[in-house]
Amino acid sequence: MAPVRLALAQTNPVVGDISGNLDAIFTQVKLAAAERADIVLFGEMALSGYPIEDLAQRASFLETCEKAVQDFAGRLQDSGLGNICVVLGHPAPAPSDAQNGWAIAQNCASILMDGEVIGKYAKHHLPNYSVFDEYRIFVPGSESLNFTVNGLNFAVLICEDIWQAGGPVASLKDTDTDVAVVLNGSPFEVGKYQTRVDLVTQLAKEAGCGVVYVNLVGGQDDLVFDGSSLVADGKGNLVLEVQSFSESRDVIEIESATKIVASNSRKTVTPDDNAQVWNALVVGLRDYVNKNGFPSVILGLSGGIDSAVCAAIAVDAIGANRVFGVSLPSMYSSDHSKSDAFDLAERLGVQIRTEAIAAMVDVTEKQLGLDGVAAENLQARVRGLILMALSNAEGHLTLTTGNKTELAVGYSTIYGDSVGGYAPIKDVPKMLVWQLARWRNEQAIREGKRPPIPENSIEKPPSAELRPGQLDQDSLPEYDLLDRILAAYIDDRLGRDQIIALGIAAETVDRIISLVDRAEWKRRQGAIGPKISGMAFGRDRRMPITNKFKQH
Amino acid sequence: MAPVRLALAQTNPVVGDISGNLDAIFTQVKLAAAERADIVLFGEMALSGYPIEDLAQRASFLETCEKAVQDFAGRLQDSGLGNICVVLGHPAPAPSDAQNGWAIAQNCASILMDGEVIGKYAKHHLPNYSVFDEYRIFVPGSESLNFTVNGLNFAVLICEDIWQAGGPVASLKDTDTDVAVVLNGSPFEVGKYQTRVDLVTQLAKEAGCGVVYVNLVGGQDDLVFDGSSLVADGKGNLVLEVQSFSESRDVIEIESATKIVASNSRKTVTPDDNAQVWNALVVGLRDYVNKNGFPSVILGLSGGIDSAVCAAIAVDAIGANRVFGVSLPSMYSSDHSKSDAFDLAERLGVQIRTEAIAAMVDVTEKQLGLDGVAAENLQARVRGLILMALSNAEGHLTLTTGNKTELAVGYSTIYGDSVGGYAPIKDVPKMLVWQLARWRNEQAIREGKRPPIPENSIEKPPSAELRPGQLDQDSLPEYDLLDRILAAYIDDRLGRDQIIALGIAAETVDRIISLVDRAEWKRRQGAIGPKISGMAFGRDRRMPITNKFKQH
Repeated sequence: MAPVRLALAQTNPVVGDISGNLDAIFTQVKLAAAERADIVLFGEMALSGYPIEDLAQRASFLETCEKAVQDFAGRLQDSGLGNICVVLGHPAPAPSDAQNGWAIAQNCASILMDGEVIGKYAKHHLPNYSVFDEYRIFVPGSESLNFTVNGLNFAVLICEDIWQAGGPVASLKDTDTDVAVVLNGSPFEVGKYQTRVDLVTQLAKEAGCGVVYVNLVGGQDDLVFDGSSLVADGKGNLVLEVQSFSESRDVIEIESATKIVASNSRKTVTPDDNAQVWNALVVGLRDYVNKNGFPSVILGLSGGIDSAVCAAIAVDAIGANRVFGVSLPSMYSSDHSKSDAFDLAERLGVQIRTEAIAAMVDVTEKQLGLDGVAAENLQARVRGLILMALSNAEGHLTLTTGNKTELAVGYSTIYGDSVGGYAPIKDVPKMLVWQLARWRNEQAIREGKRPPIPENSIEKPPSAELRPGQLDQDSLPEYDLLDRILAAYIDDRLGRDQIIALGIAAETVDRIISLVDRAEWKRRQGAIGPKISGMAFGRDRRMPITNKFKQH
Repeated sequence: MAPVRLALAQTNPVVGDISGNLDAIFTQVKLAAAERADIVLFGEMALSGYPIEDLAQRASFLETCEKAVQDFAGRLQDSGLGNICVVLGHPAPAPSDAQNGWAIAQNCASILMDGEVIGKYAKHHLPNYSVFDEYRIFVPGSESLNFTVNGLNFAVLICEDIWQAGGPVASLKDTDTDVAVVLNGSPFEVGKYQTRVDLVTQLAKEAGCGVVYVNLVGGQDDLVFDGSSLVADGKGNLVLEVQSFSESRDVIEIESATKIVASNSRKTVTPDDNAQVWNALVVGLRDYVNKNGFPSVILGLSGGIDSAVCAAIAVDAIGANRVFGVSLPSMYSSDHSKSDAFDLAERLGVQIRTEAIAAMVDVTEKQLGLDGVAAENLQARVRGLILMALSNAEGHLTLTTGNKTELAVGYSTIYGDSVGGYAPIKDVPKMLVWQLARWRNEQAIREGKRPPIPENSIEKPPSAELRPGQLDQDSLPEYDLLDRILAAYIDDRLGRDQIIALGIAAETVDRIISLVDRAEWKRRQGAIGPKISGMAFGRDRRMPITNKFKQH
């Protein structure tokens, strides 16, 4: 029997754009046909985009998806592509006796061939932790699905199914599966790639079958799918590692469970964590901007490191001509904050204009008789008001440049520096912001280009510049200590006593925990931004605002 | 055998305030002892408050709760209250072999007696729909729990357990249960009370046992627990209906499953929906303010109906001396908007001051050269900036006065009229705002008082007054039509074609759906406010921002 040629299609769907996504899928099938593929495999929910959240609770949405899958089988047939076996992820209405009024959908993969849907699999294991709410919206499947091509036996699984021991994974041996095809919507997190490689190779070895792992790619709101699709043969050898963060199509040739080769034996060098994170931030921003139809972005450039990094990400994402910077100096702004902002803009090639805030601040301060924190917040709010006015007038998406450390301790002014629809470094702690800035500059040097971020923005002590001589470290611990405490409290979910046991002063720990808890109401009103860590603010960490728990 | 005297303690815990909640619980037990109670029954999670959200994922929190329950049993014993059987809801660590790294807790009820925890029940059915995320954070229980007092057999159940057919409800007959005690954390929704009455009486009749349903009371972030505890005897007769929206303690006497009487046979008249909703809004605001330690609230008074209703709710909730109004007129403000605002303040007895926005608007408009929508938004943002400045300077919580209709279609300025930590009427559609205003005025008349809301604020056509002669209906359908479309689309989750089939013009339906979808990013950054409907914005309706689905 001829070996089976299987194409892994790593696509970037837009949530809800059924016809647009199908056009892209059709193109992939056509190209794969030209590459003599027998099977084309797409990611989880490639038809609808992922995650669809409560769209899954809308019957009209599910019916549209169901019909689209049926129609698409016909379209393939009519285009002479009916002999290819297409494995496509999509939402579908659950069987009516399994619906419960809230969960009326299933997370499915359909096998399309000869103009028909010849098989449909519903995901068994529904993740309902971290950013996932699948038990909320989906009815779990209970049947396994195998199909045969050229005498080889393929099993279908979806994402979480291979992360849980029981269920479909357990039945791979019983069904004499040669190759498991796994449709995934697995969002990027630092370090997750190696976890996936270990999981896939381990599964292949234990089940004695090939494992083809196809992931989505692209940004969807606060998630970034990194692609990084994988193939392991039945001995647990890694046969193919697809590139991260871009659409692609790779063909493998399968002779048997243990004999799988990548025709185009590309094996990308796994880039380091800094590169991975930078790419995630770039793709997250690019897709939020483009999928939502914004022509351009605007952001305040303070001369500080956060806005510099955000601007550099934006330029890498959508090009300098779509990025607009604004210098918003006050009477407290140092000369270097203005010159560093202009230096940055020049290096990046982005437009920058100056809008001094003094006139607005003065008239407000006088009318209301403000001083102290109220007057400091006023400066930040006038800046926010200017950015939003320019956004309204000129159509830009406003970016807010706060980092994870700032958001954690509430070191920002709500409706001030927090204004904007997207927060590019919201999940990036301050120490990592510096590290990424240095990495990005070194990367430029490696490419023989000018480093985009002014050295001065990286090296100078951080300051909000809301009063004369103010420094962040007047009111916060040193950032390396602060980020350690926050990682312990937020990412590792340690209690107060456990953090103190790491060797950190009790009063510092208490103060930081109190700041984090008290800032919950501000975070709840913050812009979304790309998750890169194991515990991002937002739907990943759901804490009450009203919360009097005293940590210990 | 003497009849069993059971006290239903309807308490208002604060999430996380373990020692404060326990003090209140202790007081209830002491008072119940004086009333010769044998059993005191508290609501779901009365120890910790509810919902605890991802606090349940913190081991230090769970250990604190577990230890607090143990210690409390000793405290009761030491205080001579060891002979009373206390049934207390609390979170606890799940058995270690049942933990999965995300869900490490259980939602429990413990039986405290003679200084010890003599039994512990873990909730079987975990709601994971609407505002509930319990499958995310809890491990389900699998054992039933019965205990005996004076020869009567009591079963313990928790909330969702009685809403699902299988599991503990099914075993009530097998265990010869005389009385099922049910601990609840059931948030208010319009119409839900009757659903609960039907459920409880039906269950009592079918299982042939008494059902004692104790609910929490009070506001927690975006939820309001209405209390409204209930007792039904084993024939399905309603024996006791406890008052809504306030703490209380009621004692019933149980001779047998079918012979249950309320000692103090109070049976409150069920108030109408308007009163229920008003009370929910009042309690929600009061508890958010008080549990978070705010001395006072501040809000803009425009002379319009929304701010008038919010101010009246605030005064009912925390008293006129803690409510501060600000009139923020522009050059487009009509005379009546100013005079109506002052009329309202006078009726309510709240402080009001005037801060004209002209000076700030002028200087900004000129510097940035704004016109059109950007200039309109600027006015709203200057108002927001003033309110936040006064909030910072004087310590008030800022209230934002947008209604559900406005939030649905995005008819508001983000960082403008949307600023604030709490949104009292966020889940109240515009038509209901008017209805509540009229009801509240009639209520005042019934009580021989002056109606709090100026007739003019109710009767005049609504306007944002951002340009000369502007009316809401210039850009939106009439509110009665608009609210019908929104109820169909949001609450009933109908598709476009289904809404058109209700007899509404296709182009109107399309426009409104598009407005709702496009405003998702603004809603995501909005303040929390009390849920009163079956589908509130916020964690009740989780929609993607990036969403290109075309409804049909």
